[in-house]
Amino acid sequence: MPDSSTRPNENRPNENRANETRPLLLSAFDMPTPVHQSPGLWRHPEDRSSEYTDIGYWVQLAQTLEQGGFHNLFFADVLGQYDVYRGSADEAVRGGVQYPLLDPTVLVPALAQATTRLGFGVTASTGYEHPYLLARRLSTLDHVTRGRLAWNIVTSYQDSAARNLGLTQQLGHDARYERAEEYLDVLYRLWEGTFDDGAVRRDRESGVYTDPAGVRGAGHEGEAFSVPGPALVEPSPQRTPYLFQAGASSRGQQFAARHAEAIFLIGHTPQVVAGWVRTIREQVAAEGRDPRSVKILTGVTVIADRTDEAARERLESYRPYVDVDAALALFAGWTGVDLSTADPDAPLEHAVTDANQSALAAFTKLDADARWTPRRLAEFVGIGGRGPVITGSGATVADELERWVAEADVDGFNVISAVRPADTESFVRRVSPELFRRGMLEPARAGATLRETLSGAGPALPADHHGAGFRHARV
Amino acid sequence: MPDSSTRPNENRPNENRANETRPLLLSAFDMPTPVHQSPGLWRHPEDRSSEYTDIGYWVQLAQTLEQGGFHNLFFADVLGQYDVYRGSADEAVRGGVQYPLLDPTVLVPALAQATTRLGFGVTASTGYEHPYLLARRLSTLDHVTRGRLAWNIVTSYQDSAARNLGLTQQLGHDARYERAEEYLDVLYRLWEGTFDDGAVRRDRESGVYTDPAGVRGAGHEGEAFSVPGPALVEPSPQRTPYLFQAGASSRGQQFAARHAEAIFLIGHTPQVVAGWVRTIREQVAAEGRDPRSVKILTGVTVIADRTDEAARERLESYRPYVDVDAALALFAGWTGVDLSTADPDAPLEHAVTDANQSALAAFTKLDADARWTPRRLAEFVGIGGRGPVITGSGATVADELERWVAEADVDGFNVISAVRPADTESFVRRVSPELFRRGMLEPARAGATLRETLSGAGPALPADHHGAGFRHARV
Repeated sequence: MPDSSTRPNENRPNENRANETRPLLLSAFDMPTPVHQSPGLWRHPEDRSSEYTDIGYWVQLAQTLEQGGFHNLFFADVLGQYDVYRGSADEAVRGGVQYPLLDPTVLVPALAQATTRLGFGVTASTGYEHPYLLARRLSTLDHVTRGRLAWNIVTSYQDSAARNLGLTQQLGHDARYERAEEYLDVLYRLWEGTFDDGAVRRDRESGVYTDPAGVRGAGHEGEAFSVPGPALVEPSPQRTPYLFQAGASSRGQQFAARHAEAIFLIGHTPQVVAGWVRTIREQVAAEGRDPRSVKILTGVTVIADRTDEAARERLESYRPYVDVDAALALFAGWTGVDLSTADPDAPLEHAVTDANQSALAAFTKLDADARWTPRRLAEFVGIGGRGPVITGSGATVADELERWVAEADVDGFNVISAVRPADTESFVRRVSPELFRRGMLEPARAGATLRETLSGAGPALPADHHGAGFRHARV
Repeated sequence: MPDSSTRPNENRPNENRANETRPLLLSAFDMPTPVHQSPGLWRHPEDRSSEYTDIGYWVQLAQTLEQGGFHNLFFADVLGQYDVYRGSADEAVRGGVQYPLLDPTVLVPALAQATTRLGFGVTASTGYEHPYLLARRLSTLDHVTRGRLAWNIVTSYQDSAARNLGLTQQLGHDARYERAEEYLDVLYRLWEGTFDDGAVRRDRESGVYTDPAGVRGAGHEGEAFSVPGPALVEPSPQRTPYLFQAGASSRGQQFAARHAEAIFLIGHTPQVVAGWVRTIREQVAAEGRDPRSVKILTGVTVIADRTDEAARERLESYRPYVDVDAALALFAGWTGVDLSTADPDAPLEHAVTDANQSALAAFTKLDADARWTPRRLAEFVGIGGRGPVITGSGATVADELERWVAEADVDGFNVISAVRPADTESFVRRVSPELFRRGMLEPARAGATLRETLSGAGPALPADHHGAGFRHARV
């Protein structure tokens, strides 16, 4: 295992200096819905989230990101409602908490048409759609984006989604990952194995569009799926789209160590994230892969302005807009902890039970001296969610991002906006120029695939990746 | 039943004059694949079909169509390979016969971004995807196109598709339609029934994004599907996308009479099509709908040039490029008749069996005097497929389209290109101006939904449509 993954924290300052020549990877984290991470802030005067059904909103955002040197726009997705709080979806519906929402994969072709370098990460589940159809959709997306597609693999959604998709409840957690392993193998067979390089000849003289000898069936016969035939779509620029994953459970981390090319994390402190990063790099190496080939991005909310003082004032101007009930509905969806029957202004410890202790402690331990109440918790998660809020001038934000890279050993960031899209615009106006100036940010090369942009290597899955084993006649 | 549907053919000349003030509906019929309808013509020097994986090809085509007054671009789709000929897909693969192909729904957002008036019809099956997911995808497409989406409802695909999607073979024909009826009911409940008008309030003052009292579950519990919850996507401009159908069987026609707002046909003569049209309008009326509210478009291949002579020469220049084996592979896929063991130059009657008699007669009776051989059949279907080839100057083509409207009582055309996109470009250059001059063509109004453009009525499903019965609290 390379040194970098086991190097103790005290050596990090050296690594930091080394990192100054390794530019950051910058992704924006968003969702086509009124509230992504900051319940209530859609009511802020500068917020335009309620235009989310207008494709023009997203086109403008994508162009802004590209101009600001972002490498990727990553769309979260859910297929159900947040219905844990008060045992109902009413507060999530009222507050626009990730509901209603658009299908993010449908936005991507329009955004690709309006940009030339930005990548697009789309979330899609292995749980509900047949892999033969998802293979075709993602391959087409990779063609239409000219190789700028990433797929964020998720295995699970809310029970509310499962019920509408014909299951009475989710499969068990580990069973979902077993199914996902088979699902990925089907996709690799289709994407990597069924068309030889050069099989598509487009030869007008001989009349051979595709040489049948270069095309073979996937030949998959498994527990959950039977896919004898070849892919419907000819190989796209990346063949297998660049693979994102965000599994946090130990089974999820094992899955990510095998399949993911980039991993998303979110945690409140560099120290917490550093621990996860160390484990991930060890697990990736244990799968026989270069642990540095897997890029790790951590979620941060950034509120930038002309000066530190102006940025702090901006943050303060956001606070009155946090919607406490909606924030607790989102918190309940994330953690399973329903605080609706607790007095919002009573000390949080009155609401602690054996079942919710660790979920609450993850937040309260961040400020052990504070008087935590359900309302304060809601106000806390209402801006920044499960990650840090970085506030300041462009230089201050850049310093803080440098510190995170040094202390958490991440490769870049998944940047979240609280007031949308104003915070993205401020980032591009204040922070990006500073990152460019410091050599911390390099725009993607025009014409590069997303894999080339993020990995620095070629357009194809690297040879040490599990999926590369499905190439050619090996299936 | 209105007169028009029972009026005998001899009265048609009067109707023709009446039709001069009712503009045509113009749709282009295409498919993101090397060969849509004309096997081998991708090798013609002017043909650019082999660029079909480049979104720029489709953007340019969509813009050309919009400029030429086309109202719609309709994408066919299949989910499997043509593998009847010689019991293998090899000839279809070699000849690029509807393989490989892209997922057409993925092209639409990019094309919508590059146009303002053109509608987009996408084919999607009720057979393989859960209606809760298709509802969300189509709703998002309707948002992203600003209400310019049509869904072509299909129930069945090849056995080769079914095998890759986990079935050993297709459901029986009628069973597929039973399932499709339930599928449509689920969609109507989601699209028409779960969000009241005005439920989405986006009210910054009260903090109500959506009024929970205006949102209710679909409450569907049926044979094939259980969907208790509400739609994930808020109502799109058309709510239910404009509905296309092309069912030719009697069960298919019954389905279309209930659900379709536009119906596609294809036949070689106006007389054959007129019979179908009469039946369809009677069936639509029997469902309690205005028979004129269902628009009927018939497929035509148009080869236009400066003069009739130039157009004829153009057609002759296409003939040497027809790929006989590939054409017979497509013919076998359509009809189930495999002529691969017949001598290509022996009289076709040598290949006639009880099982294939009617499929072959449908073609040979078009020219009873000709000496039909497998090769001649292939050359015949190789340009124009199952429909007529209309050749001539703009004026001649316009005359012929007028004649079809008069004799077949259709509302418009689904125009097919043999050499792509050259024939579309010729149509727009030669035929569209002539149709405009005659008042036979009116471009869509900017900002109109596709339903408004094609039906002349409002953006919502008409009150006499089955789906309108699922509105509001009636679910």
